[in-house]
Amino acid sequence: MPDDSFERLREHMLKGTRDSIKTAYSSEEHSLMQAINAYNEANKLYNTVNERLSEWFGIYFPDVTISSPKAIAEISIMLSKDGKVSKEGLEAALNDKEKADVIYAKMSQESIRKISAEELSSIAAFAGLSNSADESLKSLEAYIDQAAKRILPNTTYLTESKIAAELLSRAGSMERFANMPASTIQLLGAEKALFKHIKFGSRPPKYGVLFKLPAIGNARKDIRGRLARTYAAKIGIAIKADHFSKNFIADQLKETLDESVKRITESPVVEKKPYSFQQRKGGFGGKSWGSRRDNNNRKGNSRKFQRNPNRIYRG
Amino acid sequence: MPDDSFERLREHMLKGTRDSIKTAYSSEEHSLMQAINAYNEANKLYNTVNERLSEWFGIYFPDVTISSPKAIAEISIMLSKDGKVSKEGLEAALNDKEKADVIYAKMSQESIRKISAEELSSIAAFAGLSNSADESLKSLEAYIDQAAKRILPNTTYLTESKIAAELLSRAGSMERFANMPASTIQLLGAEKALFKHIKFGSRPPKYGVLFKLPAIGNARKDIRGRLARTYAAKIGIAIKADHFSKNFIADQLKETLDESVKRITESPVVEKKPYSFQQRKGGFGGKSWGSRRDNNNRKGNSRKFQRNPNRIYRG
Repeated sequence: MPDDSFERLREHMLKGTRDSIKTAYSSEEHSLMQAINAYNEANKLYNTVNERLSEWFGIYFPDVTISSPKAIAEISIMLSKDGKVSKEGLEAALNDKEKADVIYAKMSQESIRKISAEELSSIAAFAGLSNSADESLKSLEAYIDQAAKRILPNTTYLTESKIAAELLSRAGSMERFANMPASTIQLLGAEKALFKHIKFGSRPPKYGVLFKLPAIGNARKDIRGRLARTYAAKIGIAIKADHFSKNFIADQLKETLDESVKRITESPVVEKKPYSFQQRKGGFGGKSWGSRRDNNNRKGNSRKFQRNPNRIYRG
Repeated sequence: MPDDSFERLREHMLKGTRDSIKTAYSSEEHSLMQAINAYNEANKLYNTVNERLSEWFGIYFPDVTISSPKAIAEISIMLSKDGKVSKEGLEAALNDKEKADVIYAKMSQESIRKISAEELSSIAAFAGLSNSADESLKSLEAYIDQAAKRILPNTTYLTESKIAAELLSRAGSMERFANMPASTIQLLGAEKALFKHIKFGSRPPKYGVLFKLPAIGNARKDIRGRLARTYAAKIGIAIKADHFSKNFIADQLKETLDESVKRITESPVVEKKPYSFQQRKGGFGGKSWGSRRDNNNRKGNSRKFQRNPNRIYRG
């Protein structure tokens, strides 16, 4: 083969690979997944920064209690500018005249010690980080909301844009999500608990990401599992419509879903029965049942392994 | 007791409490501890944000590789402004003309798909978060450096401002730090490994925070433990000077420390012996030795529990 044709072949192959990578990423689902992950990370970070900030602030003014993290950040930045706070600034930050007066009185008392300029500016920079995280969160939320409604219209209609996006991200791709059985969708985000159940015989999880839905998270404890199952079944249908047919069928789905939810919510309260784990026949690779129970106890996850007399065991 | 005097007593008590809280916080060590914790948190967060950002960026331009997180952030912000990059902008961000040309050529090719404005602005907001974290880090570093040199002059002279501050933060307060034996200082920051050793018989830790010292972290593996011990001994003296006498004695300490370090570094290489754990007499509350070994194996932390024939066992 002459040199030239080899070179041409190589070029061609490279182009082919490049094109197929581009095609793989050409769908917006990837951006949505990145955005929801970024949102969750930024959210965690926002909380960490604010906790630290309020702890740090509390050192200088131990008798001042401000619950709003945004207000603490604003006051910290204000402090760094001229070393003290103004009554007007406090009012603007707290949005509450009376509280501002009380806090102003406390903050104008003799302070613990002279706070150096570097100290103030590093607190202010940290407060700026909190503000920046807040802005990111807002911007990400706006994009996620819009993109989820465009890419996952049915699923978003049944749940909520952030939850739909998180389910997608946990599933890995639209295609995988659309091919999942409802039982897998129900447990997306509960992988750790699921494998703990399978390996060590702890209680099986009832929901993963779906717990974030107010309809499930705020429901009575005894029906949460059933609600999650119902939701997962309908989401399983909705995502198929989103991925394959692209029709909007969520309004009908929502109706039947609401009916089921109503029926479940109105069902009588069920007394919780003690959990019993069925010993598996054969067991899992190499570990004896005894050691599994042992580990379970040691991890503070101890359960009584009694057979439940009210339950009919299969096999 | 008349109402009035009761009220006065209450006032008096409140004032007393307030004063004692203020006195407790009046030392700058608390700010330094907050600052070093804030620094570590901001650092972690900076890494998380940048990882996410470069992953997200890679979706749009899969064949562009930029290693500097700062450059990615800058380019993302540039992109969000008018949807594309300029050659000059890339040069400024990358600080490398040739690389900028290559990347410009790749980025001006047909893009995967049209990126929406919301998408771009949320990436830019996330990139802004990365910049903000970077600023915070710089400002915190400046304060930590200055404060550590003022509060812990001796300890900082022997180590480094951030390590001195972190040791202080782990110890809890100047007073506790100054009263610590060298062996405890050596293991500050290795609490988890220490208790794992005590409970499950894994290898005992040799250093905690001190590993971050280049003199220890970059040293030969077989002498790191000895170096950490030497450093801890000198730090134990230095912190006593910092807290009690406030004299500067670190230059003399540093001399003897350097001598010991030199002696250790020049010592011949020691072959690593297999680790053996001595069974404790009596054991620990309730748990049998057997279960402890079991747990150890299960956690992927398995060690051969053979007696070392080259070692003389006490007791």
